[in-house]
Amino acid sequence: MSSKPQTAPQGAKAKTAITPTRDENYGEWYQQVIRGADLAENSAVRGCMVIKPWGYSLWENMQRVLDDMFKATGHQNAYFPLFIPLSFMQKEAAHVEGFAKECAVVTHHRLEAGPDGKLRPTGELEEPLIVRPTSETIIGDAFSRWVQSYRDLPLLINQWANVVRWEMRTRMFLRTAEFLWQEGHTAHATKEEAVEETMRMLEVYATFAEEWMAVPVIRGEKTANERFPGAEQTFCIEAMMQDRKALQAGTSHFLGQNFAKASGIEFLDQNGQHQHAWTTSWGVSTRLIGGLLMTHSDDDGLVLPPKLAPVQVVILPIYRSDEDRARVIEYCRSVANELRAQRYADRPVSVVVDERDERGGDKVWNWIKKGVPVRIEVGPRDLEKDALFVGRRDRAPKDKQSIPRSEFVASIGATLQSIQEGLFERAKAYREQFTKRIDTKEEFYEYFTAPRVPENAPTPIHGGFALTHFSGEAALEERIKAELGVTVRCIPLEKSEPGICPFTGKPSPQRVVWAKAY
Amino acid sequence: MSSKPQTAPQGAKAKTAITPTRDENYGEWYQQVIRGADLAENSAVRGCMVIKPWGYSLWENMQRVLDDMFKATGHQNAYFPLFIPLSFMQKEAAHVEGFAKECAVVTHHRLEAGPDGKLRPTGELEEPLIVRPTSETIIGDAFSRWVQSYRDLPLLINQWANVVRWEMRTRMFLRTAEFLWQEGHTAHATKEEAVEETMRMLEVYATFAEEWMAVPVIRGEKTANERFPGAEQTFCIEAMMQDRKALQAGTSHFLGQNFAKASGIEFLDQNGQHQHAWTTSWGVSTRLIGGLLMTHSDDDGLVLPPKLAPVQVVILPIYRSDEDRARVIEYCRSVANELRAQRYADRPVSVVVDERDERGGDKVWNWIKKGVPVRIEVGPRDLEKDALFVGRRDRAPKDKQSIPRSEFVASIGATLQSIQEGLFERAKAYREQFTKRIDTKEEFYEYFTAPRVPENAPTPIHGGFALTHFSGEAALEERIKAELGVTVRCIPLEKSEPGICPFTGKPSPQRVVWAKAY
Repeated sequence: MSSKPQTAPQGAKAKTAITPTRDENYGEWYQQVIRGADLAENSAVRGCMVIKPWGYSLWENMQRVLDDMFKATGHQNAYFPLFIPLSFMQKEAAHVEGFAKECAVVTHHRLEAGPDGKLRPTGELEEPLIVRPTSETIIGDAFSRWVQSYRDLPLLINQWANVVRWEMRTRMFLRTAEFLWQEGHTAHATKEEAVEETMRMLEVYATFAEEWMAVPVIRGEKTANERFPGAEQTFCIEAMMQDRKALQAGTSHFLGQNFAKASGIEFLDQNGQHQHAWTTSWGVSTRLIGGLLMTHSDDDGLVLPPKLAPVQVVILPIYRSDEDRARVIEYCRSVANELRAQRYADRPVSVVVDERDERGGDKVWNWIKKGVPVRIEVGPRDLEKDALFVGRRDRAPKDKQSIPRSEFVASIGATLQSIQEGLFERAKAYREQFTKRIDTKEEFYEYFTAPRVPENAPTPIHGGFALTHFSGEAALEERIKAELGVTVRCIPLEKSEPGICPFTGKPSPQRVVWAKAY
Repeated sequence: MSSKPQTAPQGAKAKTAITPTRDENYGEWYQQVIRGADLAENSAVRGCMVIKPWGYSLWENMQRVLDDMFKATGHQNAYFPLFIPLSFMQKEAAHVEGFAKECAVVTHHRLEAGPDGKLRPTGELEEPLIVRPTSETIIGDAFSRWVQSYRDLPLLINQWANVVRWEMRTRMFLRTAEFLWQEGHTAHATKEEAVEETMRMLEVYATFAEEWMAVPVIRGEKTANERFPGAEQTFCIEAMMQDRKALQAGTSHFLGQNFAKASGIEFLDQNGQHQHAWTTSWGVSTRLIGGLLMTHSDDDGLVLPPKLAPVQVVILPIYRSDEDRARVIEYCRSVANELRAQRYADRPVSVVVDERDERGGDKVWNWIKKGVPVRIEVGPRDLEKDALFVGRRDRAPKDKQSIPRSEFVASIGATLQSIQEGLFERAKAYREQFTKRIDTKEEFYEYFTAPRVPENAPTPIHGGFALTHFSGEAALEERIKAELGVTVRCIPLEKSEPGICPFTGKPSPQRVVWAKAY
């Protein structure tokens, strides 16, 4: 009942809905999966993308789940100005150093026609305003007013917002000049409480990645080189993409008293003494969509984990005559309603009946490329049998089964959960396959330089994640980055045995994760 | 059990939680209600406010309801760039004219230290970028790619976003340089469909205002003077505030083919002919919070309609001894859980038990100022009677009743609905009281100039809304605006009888609404 993908090249090898395949050109494959699923597109504004309805509804689902998790851990949402006065950015030296090279600066507040009739900026501002790249300084200013006494602490705030970082090389979702994110900002009376909060939110992110996105992650701490500008410690979750590169999927920063001192967040403690608060910040962004895409998608396009899919089941009426059309569509609608009465992952099952007058095969491939977990095709014969022809996005497009309607409806929750778990297990097995414990410098260099399969790929694929001992010198890490494009992705929270650093011969407390990264 | 408000001045007149009262100084009363409810505060960035958790949770409730209404009418959310290239703004002449004088312009993309060590903007952009004041042009650009055939229409998109208009005189929620809003943008194959969409969304806004915010509104069309820059027709909902001024609470624009021509939104119709699409746009913003505040609040602070209140019921344990404390709190928690099992307006009743160790009276006044619809006070004696001491925010603070627990719990939905409806009826009666049909020029001028009660108020209050006939000359409307600060708020959709314009003696098809406005 399905037709072959329209976009696949004619030739001897298996046809795929996405051209090129992952093996042929991973970077271009990524762009084409986005295009095939209609997630987003580039805009006329350099480095800024348009998030199209399918991509945005995925983000809405992510927001809803994360927002619930933030509220369940005691946080409240608020909203702070888009603009940050230049003087605020300068309050924390490392912070401004980290962001000064890539920020959008507002300098004027009106447009006027010049003598040539062309509009140009006028009304120069006394102090330039930075479009927020992150909000520690402007939120710190508010916190300095809100926090007076130990009774005002902890202060647990989250903001959903857009931010701008003027990146020179951009890629949709992964690195864009403007992106959407949430940024948590909290203030605490003691160092211990702030550290506890930092770790709590890291764990929230890890749970979200693993249980909702079906993306296995390594929880760890960043080295000083990769730390957030102004933080004392940065913790992260790192995932492996299918080109074996790492993607930093979320970060949680312990900021010590750096920003509290810069912004004047002070309180009177129980003994009547003035103290600076201890602060944290943590964030995830629309980058998660890029990570989700690169973890699960295949050469037929996007693959969505059922828990976050905007549509979990699509029903495709297949008919030739107008007479068939009416009764097939009616049948499909009644199946849809039965499915919507079922629940999965705390919400009713999301079902679409695709009634568009287009070729059945085109419609099937359209939904495959969009990543919908379960497809049902219903033709006149299925209707007579009271059975559904069911395909799963985690299996080959042709691998379809006829299942009695009542059996299918009753087990939809279990089916979706089986897909969800299967995606997680497959991603975890992939990461383990391409993670290697390495104990010599020579093997390390070979692992990251020798091209792997395919031999003639435009971007040769390296080994993957390397677990080596490391004695921690920042300069050594810099040199390896310059030589191989490889960095310490994190020092895992789950500690290994101590050993010897293969680069320096010095003792090392535990293995760290090295990889190329997005 | 309640104590007197702490902020009221000592004196002969009745004490109020907010100083000054509405009669004493309406503008300052507005600021103090925001402060007393902890809704928002001014920030260090000119004209930009910080929306604090209580204000933001009110906005979240508004968003949730509106978003559901938009989706139920077939719209999908998407996200478009924050920045608009200057050349895009110029595509529609009236549009750029309308926004050029108040826009934030990004001209540089990095900061560098000068010889004096101070950071200054560098990396000048080839083309300045405007921080979006509204998104017709950037969304039009995307639509020109998305729309190719009549099959792609209608295109029904909504965006939740921040926008910036560099207003010179700002006031929290009502007029801020940056504000949060939603902007709907749609494209249609025919004029009729676009007009129908424009009116459908106006009705969505009117329903939201009346049924959710409990704010009665007049649905109408704007005169040419008050039209959105670039629109063919602008429709609006107008509400009366307690100073008898009008507040435009939402607008829906029929844009004709103006923006379709400017942005090149073209499609092949069913006859294979190229056509320009017909577009609409419509929006409401955080300004709604200001309107809600000024409609219902009183001299004790914010009054929230139950359907949108972040907390619908607050329970205040009142005790003197530690022994009492434990059993009173336990009782309060069990009442809270019973209430949470009840539903009102499609969600579980939202309940907070205020267990903070503060003076009972302070806590009571704190929640009054926050506008929570129902307050319950529970002391040891109430507990013995198994009864609750209940106050309603739509009644005087001292007007409290003892109600048996089971009776109160069972009727909570009805109680909240009675408050919701009462607020609407009160606001409607107020508007009717201060709306007058006026048929002579003299009476019109007297209505808007003679100070009403109170005689010595810092801002003398004018008459209110005037319904007069009007023959429609733009110049006349301009002159009246210059003389009285009064404008035609709208030409109501609900038509009156035809008559004679009192200003020109010419025929007039119907009465229009004149008022001073925010």
